[in-house]
Amino acid sequence: MTIRVPIVENILNANDHLAEQNRGRIDSAGVFSINIMASPGAGKTSLIEQTLPRLKDKLRVAVVDGDIATSIDADRAANAGAQAAIQVNTGGDCHLDAVMLRGALEQLDLTQFDLLIVENVGNLVCPASFKLGTHKSILIASIPEGDDKPYKYPGMYRGVDALVINKIDLLPYVPFKMDYFKHGVEVLNPGVLTFPLSAKTGEGMDAWVDWLIGQVKAM
Amino acid sequence: MTIRVPIVENILNANDHLAEQNRGRIDSAGVFSINIMASPGAGKTSLIEQTLPRLKDKLRVAVVDGDIATSIDADRAANAGAQAAIQVNTGGDCHLDAVMLRGALEQLDLTQFDLLIVENVGNLVCPASFKLGTHKSILIASIPEGDDKPYKYPGMYRGVDALVINKIDLLPYVPFKMDYFKHGVEVLNPGVLTFPLSAKTGEGMDAWVDWLIGQVKAM
Repeated sequence: MTIRVPIVENILNANDHLAEQNRGRIDSAGVFSINIMASPGAGKTSLIEQTLPRLKDKLRVAVVDGDIATSIDADRAANAGAQAAIQVNTGGDCHLDAVMLRGALEQLDLTQFDLLIVENVGNLVCPASFKLGTHKSILIASIPEGDDKPYKYPGMYRGVDALVINKIDLLPYVPFKMDYFKHGVEVLNPGVLTFPLSAKTGEGMDAWVDWLIGQVKAM
Repeated sequence: MTIRVPIVENILNANDHLAEQNRGRIDSAGVFSINIMASPGAGKTSLIEQTLPRLKDKLRVAVVDGDIATSIDADRAANAGAQAAIQVNTGGDCHLDAVMLRGALEQLDLTQFDLLIVENVGNLVCPASFKLGTHKSILIASIPEGDDKPYKYPGMYRGVDALVINKIDLLPYVPFKMDYFKHGVEVLNPGVLTFPLSAKTGEGMDAWVDWLIGQVKAM
């Protein structure tokens, strides 16, 4: 295993350098950008689908969708009203990296947008190690995943700027102790901004959308 | 990126070699072994918790639990009746590998068991690439993850011997088109053995447990 450590460190250093370049490009265009991460099926695409119509006529949004395979997510984002939606297939990799985002940014005239939403590959481990250059990292937890996820995936919960707790409409049907979950979050990431919501019913969506609009205005 | 390919191939070749050694050790002891993989929160530990009491006085079971951090899962397996439960913390890695399983096997007298259950790290990408040496690979899909997962994680769905579809009790509360899901599975893994069940309500558990017992008897 020892031989892997310097190789991995070099890859991560190179990635961080490219992430800084991505940030420079995004900042120059005056765009606010987020990197949405989550377990498979926590609702990244559903959240984006429900967010976009609420931003209509307010913000011009570009979405970059990362996936192992298929363009299902970019198609959904485009149908939901994204002014641009680019699919990045990672070819097997369990995360987006800064090179992949750079490739996507080169296909966009960033000055035409106010908000850039990057949807990462569904994974609670790999994406935490690879900075992309976005302004804020968002993690979506979902109620049916269970209340122990902060304890089991601390690297992911520690590194994010905001936490969306999705599928709160399922709380009556699954065992989920909110206090236990929130305690785990608080230990790893004290005071992290939290948005409990249901992308399905719309409950809680306003607070999330208002925060996004506020961040764009503050750029 | 080019430099990464041979390195990754070498690691995978070395892993496969160790996986064969693990299989030899497991076969010599006459134990039937499974590698359970799934997205975080699909219900790997819950399925094991509900399976163990049903095997009581029938099979002697050892559980090896892989996780990034914590020993929550091994504790749950031990409480549910596993004769031995070993936690392997991967130290950040998004999957178990054959070296990690070998380390766990060295702590067990395999001749004392009939069934070895390996619970992999919650991830739909990384574990698919790393053989462990177990007899069968089991994937747990869960209803609230959504019906598009076979399309988005083809590597995982293609490589498994059986598919558990967990949380069928949530079908009335979430959008999930079973036909669309099953079509995706069938394209990738024609005729794969499927167990729709709810670890929560117990529905469908008998078929799963009967299959496990049958596999052990056939050893």
